[in-house]
Amino acid sequence: MHPSLLQDSVRGCPKEIPHNEKLLSLKYESLDYDNSENQLFLEEERRMSFLGFKCLEISRWVICGLIGFLTGLIACCIDIAVENLAGVKYYVVKQNIEKFTEVGGLSISLILWAVLNSAFVMLGAVIVAFFEPGAAGSGIPQIKCYLNGVKIPRVVRLKTLVVKVCGVICSVAGGLAVGKEGPMIHSGAVVAAGVSQGRSTSLKKDFKVGGYCGVLFSLEEGASFWNQMLTWRIFFASMISTFTLNFFLSIYNNKPGDLSSPGLINFGRFESDVSVCLLLSSPKPCGLLGALFNILNYWLTIFRIRYVHRPCLQVMEAMLVAAVTATVSFAMIYFSNDCQPLGPDQSEDYPLQLFCADGEYNSMATAFFNTPERSVRSLFHNPPGRLFYNPLTLSLFTLTYFFLACWTYGLTVSAGVFIPSLLIGAHRTLARLVSIMFVCRSLSQVWAVPGKYAFNGSCRGIVRMTLSLTVIMVEATGNVTYGLPIMLVLLTAKIVGDYFVEGLYDIHIKLQSVPFLHLEAPATSHWLTAREVMGAPVTCFNRIEKVGTIVDVLSNTSTNHNLGKICGLILRSQLIVLLKHKVRELARSRLTQRKLQLKDFRDAYPRFPPIQSIHVSQDERECMMDLTEFMNPTPYTVPQETSLPRVFKLFRALGLRHLVVVDSENRVVGLVTRKDLARYHLGKHGLEEMQLAQT
Amino acid sequence: MHPSLLQDSVRGCPKEIPHNEKLLSLKYESLDYDNSENQLFLEEERRMSFLGFKCLEISRWVICGLIGFLTGLIACCIDIAVENLAGVKYYVVKQNIEKFTEVGGLSISLILWAVLNSAFVMLGAVIVAFFEPGAAGSGIPQIKCYLNGVKIPRVVRLKTLVVKVCGVICSVAGGLAVGKEGPMIHSGAVVAAGVSQGRSTSLKKDFKVGGYCGVLFSLEEGASFWNQMLTWRIFFASMISTFTLNFFLSIYNNKPGDLSSPGLINFGRFESDVSVCLLLSSPKPCGLLGALFNILNYWLTIFRIRYVHRPCLQVMEAMLVAAVTATVSFAMIYFSNDCQPLGPDQSEDYPLQLFCADGEYNSMATAFFNTPERSVRSLFHNPPGRLFYNPLTLSLFTLTYFFLACWTYGLTVSAGVFIPSLLIGAHRTLARLVSIMFVCRSLSQVWAVPGKYAFNGSCRGIVRMTLSLTVIMVEATGNVTYGLPIMLVLLTAKIVGDYFVEGLYDIHIKLQSVPFLHLEAPATSHWLTAREVMGAPVTCFNRIEKVGTIVDVLSNTSTNHNLGKICGLILRSQLIVLLKHKVRELARSRLTQRKLQLKDFRDAYPRFPPIQSIHVSQDERECMMDLTEFMNPTPYTVPQETSLPRVFKLFRALGLRHLVVVDSENRVVGLVTRKDLARYHLGKHGLEEMQLAQT
Repeated sequence: MHPSLLQDSVRGCPKEIPHNEKLLSLKYESLDYDNSENQLFLEEERRMSFLGFKCLEISRWVICGLIGFLTGLIACCIDIAVENLAGVKYYVVKQNIEKFTEVGGLSISLILWAVLNSAFVMLGAVIVAFFEPGAAGSGIPQIKCYLNGVKIPRVVRLKTLVVKVCGVICSVAGGLAVGKEGPMIHSGAVVAAGVSQGRSTSLKKDFKVGGYCGVLFSLEEGASFWNQMLTWRIFFASMISTFTLNFFLSIYNNKPGDLSSPGLINFGRFESDVSVCLLLSSPKPCGLLGALFNILNYWLTIFRIRYVHRPCLQVMEAMLVAAVTATVSFAMIYFSNDCQPLGPDQSEDYPLQLFCADGEYNSMATAFFNTPERSVRSLFHNPPGRLFYNPLTLSLFTLTYFFLACWTYGLTVSAGVFIPSLLIGAHRTLARLVSIMFVCRSLSQVWAVPGKYAFNGSCRGIVRMTLSLTVIMVEATGNVTYGLPIMLVLLTAKIVGDYFVEGLYDIHIKLQSVPFLHLEAPATSHWLTAREVMGAPVTCFNRIEKVGTIVDVLSNTSTNHNLGKICGLILRSQLIVLLKHKVRELARSRLTQRKLQLKDFRDAYPRFPPIQSIHVSQDERECMMDLTEFMNPTPYTVPQETSLPRVFKLFRALGLRHLVVVDSENRVVGLVTRKDLARYHLGKHGLEEMQLAQT
Repeated sequence: MHPSLLQDSVRGCPKEIPHNEKLLSLKYESLDYDNSENQLFLEEERRMSFLGFKCLEISRWVICGLIGFLTGLIACCIDIAVENLAGVKYYVVKQNIEKFTEVGGLSISLILWAVLNSAFVMLGAVIVAFFEPGAAGSGIPQIKCYLNGVKIPRVVRLKTLVVKVCGVICSVAGGLAVGKEGPMIHSGAVVAAGVSQGRSTSLKKDFKVGGYCGVLFSLEEGASFWNQMLTWRIFFASMISTFTLNFFLSIYNNKPGDLSSPGLINFGRFESDVSVCLLLSSPKPCGLLGALFNILNYWLTIFRIRYVHRPCLQVMEAMLVAAVTATVSFAMIYFSNDCQPLGPDQSEDYPLQLFCADGEYNSMATAFFNTPERSVRSLFHNPPGRLFYNPLTLSLFTLTYFFLACWTYGLTVSAGVFIPSLLIGAHRTLARLVSIMFVCRSLSQVWAVPGKYAFNGSCRGIVRMTLSLTVIMVEATGNVTYGLPIMLVLLTAKIVGDYFVEGLYDIHIKLQSVPFLHLEAPATSHWLTAREVMGAPVTCFNRIEKVGTIVDVLSNTSTNHNLGKICGLILRSQLIVLLKHKVRELARSRLTQRKLQLKDFRDAYPRFPPIQSIHVSQDERECMMDLTEFMNPTPYTVPQETSLPRVFKLFRALGLRHLVVVDSENRVVGLVTRKDLARYHLGKHGLEEMQLAQT
């Protein structure tokens, strides 16, 4: 009778991530949602009173509230900082432009604008590239993997949070074609992980996933280990977070308590709160244009991986993009002659008169001389009778923004892609064009005001198809009857898009060689059995094993392949804690032998010391260690004839990290891990098998 | 090596359902969400091409569309029929009242009203009581159990659908304090089951659950075997259904294509569509009043089970309730002197002048002389400046309606409880009273118009706490900032309510002794192991077994307890199909031996013949039958030391019907079924164990 040890953790830790979508990296470990129900755990559970469980339940709600509060606070800080920095920047540039419009020295304004942008972006890129590369990008792919059960290193550290928040402020204020929603979601996840780990004694792991990010996002991605109470708690956290955000923003705006002011619930604000999480579950620009975006970005990413991997190069590229963005924007504004009368309610934030007549402003500047979020708001919130943009302006804007956003995504700055994809969504623009040009009675009867049509089209543009989106659409148009047409439109966009290329996030996940498990096993994988996919042979220990043998196996210098009946499963991390404590006790001449408790294992979580840090003397090596108390005596097992879809289902439904394969005599014959399952995927010619990266 | 057979199905079928919440009935079988992956199935899957899977996927969408369309059509029929019948009824009574108001013979009007009501209700009660008792009530508890995995007999039959639809039309038109939403959901489920079973060759079982009823309802109840694509398909079906409903209603109202007319999207209509499903997940009147409602209804239900179990008595009780409802309503209207001026836009459907001055109408009649749905609409849709009801009218209305609804729920008619609970929700009324009496500036600033506050209060009143509700609330108030206060209010209501009594649906489920599995195992059940909860001994067969032995075991005349190593699992239903076909083949003198195919098993689904209907001659009894091809060679197993929560998790996550318990030698020692898990629940004094009913 032997407890089996997972063999894959023993293979050692590769240093670098391979960037090839045909490989699976061994660098990523799996999160384990399955409790190790060893004797220690069961004893603790049995000691716990009914009241104890109630307290635990209440403390979970408190933790969730705290997570929500902190996340709201962070979102609020980001929002205020961005508004202020961008405000100062645009004010300075506007003063300069107004000063030089008459005298003809606008190139000085351009340089000023470009320098300001580059300065902000440089700051943002430096902290990301030199201090915490994990904070680059939107963070959504990382969170998506985390929810899927892949442990991405350094993704939920405090340092990442700080860099992420500062980075996103810099890149948005620096005028890049980016949004701040992705980083906000990432921040929420870090807060959630931090708060719940800080009290990990009384908390289960489920707190680490989700957090602020809203219900549907987590639902779509992590549906298999779901739970009604968890939904509730996440929803509660979102509510707290939204409330906090709006509360502090209302104080900041000198309207304390005025939470229902329209300024807080319009599209612009709305999207930066809870709902944006819902939308963000898989933002990919749509249909053909979306496919083009993704393909261009894919090539760009490959190029970056090969040639722009040094931090200083990355910072320089980011600065270059910032300068180019300013230049292009300036050129667009300069050559545009689309003047619009200044409305009485002065909805423009920084109206640029430029070469327009008095009382008019340059409409291109509304789009470019603004933070991306404000551009979106002004695009969507035009009342139907007051269309600011003429079709040419819109088309030019879309084209320019398309290339800028494509170039920007993947830079070594902390930035999201949601707002840009809303802005470039050609379908939005097209829809808006259509609605401007053919405002026929019958159409507007069904589609209400053009603004709504534009809204509909836009989202069709950016997201291939998610449940969340239709919910948002229905909510936004306030009418369930529109649900069907919206859904059909989305479906079409998704089919067209999928035909050409995968989603943007999925591309980036694949390029990282992450062992990502999809919702179901590949359709044609029924002919594969556990015997064929499992890793074998497995390293086994006896129930009572010599310390020396354990140390050797953990140090990867020897293996044990004696095939015994399975009597339990013990994790590498548990063995290390065990060795650490036992060894220390042996050193204390066996006088003060204290029983190891669950707390000792929890204290070590989540960063276990490497085996090399534990020094075992020759004497100690000869001691015997009884693993019975610490192993999980009832691990999930499957017979070796089990088909791959069945193994997959068990894995996904229970959130497993490893599954023991046994023969008919209950002897261990192998171990199925996440990598063994993620290896198979449906290619164009049927089932394909990916290689495991040896680095 | 023996395939094990589930023992519990062999115990025979009890005739009557015990009505005791301390018992678990053996009558209910479990639905099996786990595929029996036998050789036949695997061969079929392996034969299937990639294109085949694509077609299967498309056909699923088509089926879902069809389900949505049919459900929408049925909802539309119910709506139109109710509106017309009720219209005719109220028209006749109104003419009569107006005729007799002057001459003082209003008792004739009362009798006319009562007789009309009773006639409608009699019709509805007769078809339910005599033809299909399964169509009684709202159907939500049954669907809730079905989604939980309990197979409630006759709940998804076509006959049930027809009776349900006719029944609900009669009971709503008959003026009972009922709604038509619950039955609509039930109808949707029947359609879903019917359409998907009709093509069950190409469909998995997951279609049978959910159907029209919307995403969140299913999500909350059936969360453990969830799937993103399923969500999408259900959502799609809901959309189709809503679209169909609105489309046909718009044609009926002579405004074809005018889907955005406000009449179709106001609260009244809105709630009868998709969203109502979301709300309906657990409607229980709230807090203290809700607890009172549930306790009264509980006693009434016990009384009915004991004394009103004969169909004719049930019909008479329903007629009595109908007559009393009419009488009470009439009395309320008669003695009310709350006159309101007739508005210019004539929003009343049947304004009764009665003793009011010309140009005024009796405001009590708006509430009572109307279908419940219209009452709700007029309550919620009053503009803030135009409050039709004075506080006294409202209080009286609530009190009366409270007792009427309590008496009505549980009658042998097809009717829902959602609309009534909206109407009686004392909190709604109180909230409305508050908002009328203290329309202070600060309050209305946060809570917008009184109508919204009323809405908020009302729902707090009826539903203890569901995610769906907060979503609806947020959607209805159109502002996420309100989410937090709404959620806190709901949380309070739930805690207060739970302290006193369970939810209305849960009470009715318990009274039916249904083995309902909750989301998690009871908190203090860690000390129970699979060995203690399992059913043992298990009946086992050899891999190649004598026909006579199988027949004897299935007929319950003998048992086989030889403990062998497990080599597979075979279902009673599979054995019966096997016997039926094999026996027939043996009779054909073994010349035309045809291979049994998966289709033969599917054709028999879901109604297998009883074992008694299969005649086996003495000759045939001696034949040997090879079960290898038909058994599932890789059933899920657990060691006998597994803790109850672990078994529970596996059961819920995979939607199992039975789980084999093995010892360390892989020998079958027992079988865990739904009843073994549902037996344990957390009482006031810790873990309690329910008895299994022997009837």
